[in-house]
Amino acid sequence: MSVTSLNTSRRLLGNSIRNISANVGKGGQYYGVFCSVRCVSTSAVMDNRVLTLDNMNPYVKKMEYAVRGPLVIRATALEKELQAGAQKPFKEVTKANIGDAHAMGQKPITFLRQVVSVCLFPQLFADSNIPEDAKARARLVLDGCKGGSLGSYSDSAGIEIIRHHVADYITRRDGGIKSSWEDIVLCAGASEGIKGLLQVMTNHTDGQRIGVMVPIPQYPLYSATLAEFDLEQVSYYLDESANWALDVEELERSIAEAKTRCSPRALVVINPGNPTGQVLSRPNIEAIIKFAQRHHLFLIADEVYQHNVYADGCAFHSFKKVMSEMGAPYANMELASYMSISKGFMGECGLRGGYAELVNVDPAVKAMFLKMISAKLCPTTLGQAVVECVVNPPVAGDPSYESFEAEKGEVLRSLAQRAKLVAETFNTVPGMSCNVVQGAMYAFPQISMPPKALEAAAAAGQKPDVFYAFQLLENTGICVVPGSGFGQRPGTHHFRTTILPQPDQLATMLQKFRVFHEEFLKKYS
Amino acid sequence: MSVTSLNTSRRLLGNSIRNISANVGKGGQYYGVFCSVRCVSTSAVMDNRVLTLDNMNPYVKKMEYAVRGPLVIRATALEKELQAGAQKPFKEVTKANIGDAHAMGQKPITFLRQVVSVCLFPQLFADSNIPEDAKARARLVLDGCKGGSLGSYSDSAGIEIIRHHVADYITRRDGGIKSSWEDIVLCAGASEGIKGLLQVMTNHTDGQRIGVMVPIPQYPLYSATLAEFDLEQVSYYLDESANWALDVEELERSIAEAKTRCSPRALVVINPGNPTGQVLSRPNIEAIIKFAQRHHLFLIADEVYQHNVYADGCAFHSFKKVMSEMGAPYANMELASYMSISKGFMGECGLRGGYAELVNVDPAVKAMFLKMISAKLCPTTLGQAVVECVVNPPVAGDPSYESFEAEKGEVLRSLAQRAKLVAETFNTVPGMSCNVVQGAMYAFPQISMPPKALEAAAAAGQKPDVFYAFQLLENTGICVVPGSGFGQRPGTHHFRTTILPQPDQLATMLQKFRVFHEEFLKKYS
Repeated sequence: MSVTSLNTSRRLLGNSIRNISANVGKGGQYYGVFCSVRCVSTSAVMDNRVLTLDNMNPYVKKMEYAVRGPLVIRATALEKELQAGAQKPFKEVTKANIGDAHAMGQKPITFLRQVVSVCLFPQLFADSNIPEDAKARARLVLDGCKGGSLGSYSDSAGIEIIRHHVADYITRRDGGIKSSWEDIVLCAGASEGIKGLLQVMTNHTDGQRIGVMVPIPQYPLYSATLAEFDLEQVSYYLDESANWALDVEELERSIAEAKTRCSPRALVVINPGNPTGQVLSRPNIEAIIKFAQRHHLFLIADEVYQHNVYADGCAFHSFKKVMSEMGAPYANMELASYMSISKGFMGECGLRGGYAELVNVDPAVKAMFLKMISAKLCPTTLGQAVVECVVNPPVAGDPSYESFEAEKGEVLRSLAQRAKLVAETFNTVPGMSCNVVQGAMYAFPQISMPPKALEAAAAAGQKPDVFYAFQLLENTGICVVPGSGFGQRPGTHHFRTTILPQPDQLATMLQKFRVFHEEFLKKYS
Repeated sequence: MSVTSLNTSRRLLGNSIRNISANVGKGGQYYGVFCSVRCVSTSAVMDNRVLTLDNMNPYVKKMEYAVRGPLVIRATALEKELQAGAQKPFKEVTKANIGDAHAMGQKPITFLRQVVSVCLFPQLFADSNIPEDAKARARLVLDGCKGGSLGSYSDSAGIEIIRHHVADYITRRDGGIKSSWEDIVLCAGASEGIKGLLQVMTNHTDGQRIGVMVPIPQYPLYSATLAEFDLEQVSYYLDESANWALDVEELERSIAEAKTRCSPRALVVINPGNPTGQVLSRPNIEAIIKFAQRHHLFLIADEVYQHNVYADGCAFHSFKKVMSEMGAPYANMELASYMSISKGFMGECGLRGGYAELVNVDPAVKAMFLKMISAKLCPTTLGQAVVECVVNPPVAGDPSYESFEAEKGEVLRSLAQRAKLVAETFNTVPGMSCNVVQGAMYAFPQISMPPKALEAAAAAGQKPDVFYAFQLLENTGICVVPGSGFGQRPGTHHFRTTILPQPDQLATMLQKFRVFHEEFLKKYS
């Protein structure tokens, strides 16, 4: 390359970066990571692209998903630096940003992995080390697959026998309130199912914008998907002073305010809560259902943590059950409830499985939903097979029963201990307060930021909680997600951490956290 | 229920069905299947639903996906009727509607299933029946997974080592033209990847509609996704008289006409062709690339059948390779190429795996795409592990090499024989003509419909090809997809059949087909 052409390239490169910076908007934080030297030097040549930041889908530009945002990208880069021998104030990165149990050392449930292995490699039917009930279950799944292979497409709504078993599970869970298998739609993780439903709710051509009520703090799948499909986010604040309960007065405030700018159509409730870890009481759920009925809202119950209830006196009550027991008109309300294999005691995030129960949904709308997902063909059959094992576990007398119960019990007991440890520890740190982690997999403590820290954040061009989280990461290797990624009351600062590091690692993490926080307060006091 | 309330319910039910029929539009054909008696009787109670056919996403209503449309739904119902002991003119239903190899009896590739079984159930590392190279491969995959488990989330773009191996595969495939692992995005089947890209291309807020050029006949994922994201379909006809080649004059005609109503942004090419089975020649590809460059189009190359090339003198040429070898400006064009584990010799449809190579895509756009998919967390790790085995098969000297090559070779040889048999047989049936099936998994023969058959179709309220396909299904149990589901020149009639029934079953199917067609002609002549 001649000097002249090199200079030209540099100039083009400069322009190109300026253009990008000008246009990238809120998503700009993602840019740097992918724009390697190779890309940029190419972009000097590519000054005439068809698809650009300027003309692409504006809703995709707008969406944000903090759980995999810039902090996580930086944490991954730090891991690589450590591997390459860089000296840091820490030896390893602790990714407490995402509910990813196996990544944090949780072991898979043996029965479940046996079943899916036999499904995939039927020669294992002859393996005497694999118990008969696992083989029988694999046989049942394969009998439900076309050609007897997990390699064939299933129906778009899932393998029929598994849909039956999901309905049976729900019926048992809800004390006999009937679930119909035709209301069950299997999906590749709850996220896929929730996104699909929100997509169906969108109506760009109506004059009025469609609103969806979501809690603040919320799991950012919701804000991301609302942005993606151009739905209006209608935020209601959870009551931090009442262990993140839903306050009906706040719901009323929120919807009244929203009605001036959109037509609210659905109410999202996450129970047990993510990122907030609360488990809703039955009276609270009843009040929420009455509110939704009063305002003609479709209920979206994100119940993926239904197995993750730890605190004494707390129990999981499904929206389906409460609504049904309340009788008409509540029993006839439209509800979509979601479950996942990624959480609970199994933590099979990577295998992608989950289901929706679509209760009282207009059959014609359901048909359209099924038509829409048919173009994606089907959710992974392997994930479906895991759903089968979760909703239909070994029962007393089955060869795998005791080991299954022991493994499941051990995971849930340990999570309960860690939930307690995390909240109790944070509450002993000056300037931090944390609600009881009644369920799910997260704590969402509040941190008080000294004025000088706020100034330092402003000087760094970061939100205070983002500044705090980056400082934490760079100094300790602990990766959490800033509260602003989930939403929080203005002027308050939080972060979300999972409770998933294994007990020893968690104790170390919490100790590092305490030291960091005390030094942070000292530095900025 | 009293007689009065029963009558009220009946009346409401009648209203509800009439309303639905009035509103259901083109999607109405799907309705009947899901609207069981249970649903409808509930809907009498549910006269005040939040989400209805009237107020839901209109684009979802508009989309259609014929491969899983009403014929397939009827075929499934027939299977159930047969199982329940009903008497039909046939003993079994032959589903030749979908490229689902395992469903039609194709056996999985042993190496591939061994690797994923060991990944899922690491106790199998101790199994002496599993060859060492399969274990080593499983180790490699697990080493790429967080916590060493397939149960952890991967990066949204996929497990890094597998992305590297995909890039290596492409580089080898394209005779050394370099592919970069950062351009590779793994996905849960090619469909998911293609849908994501088209979503990013959408821009509702621009005054001008965005157009995407698709072949006619096309794979209906494209028409469905264009409808779903409100993109304008710009159809170009493949040249049936030239074995479904792309004619640049026709591309020019199509784009000129389209420019009066939209801004064409991308060109989709399916090679080898679905549903048409052609394999594009290199000069044809060069002409297409020049056309796309001339009109500033983003190239979308659906190359999922790249292993499925059968006819003498045909070879697969990737768009990436041809474009690169043409040099600037063609080598700098934006291209997305897709591959899948569902096709080829492996046919692992249910496991959901695939990849996109995003060539010369604006890094800022790519960053936005990656941000968008991050909210879905990740494609199934199991599907990714299968991608690994497909792009990085055993090599000479590996313990599994010979069996792998033998199994792969046998599948592809048999498919080649069946491709030949199908086209040759159809060409001996009076009133049918079929192009050579050079590749992929389908034949798309033309049928001449006698005037009386057209009248009978009109009387039945069906398109002629739909009428034909339903008659075929009801009389023979053979399920194909009518040509209108893919698009065809007005006044011509086709159907798509797969070549996937196993050889004996295929011979029987073709014989039944011949008898049916001759009787059909007789009946309506």
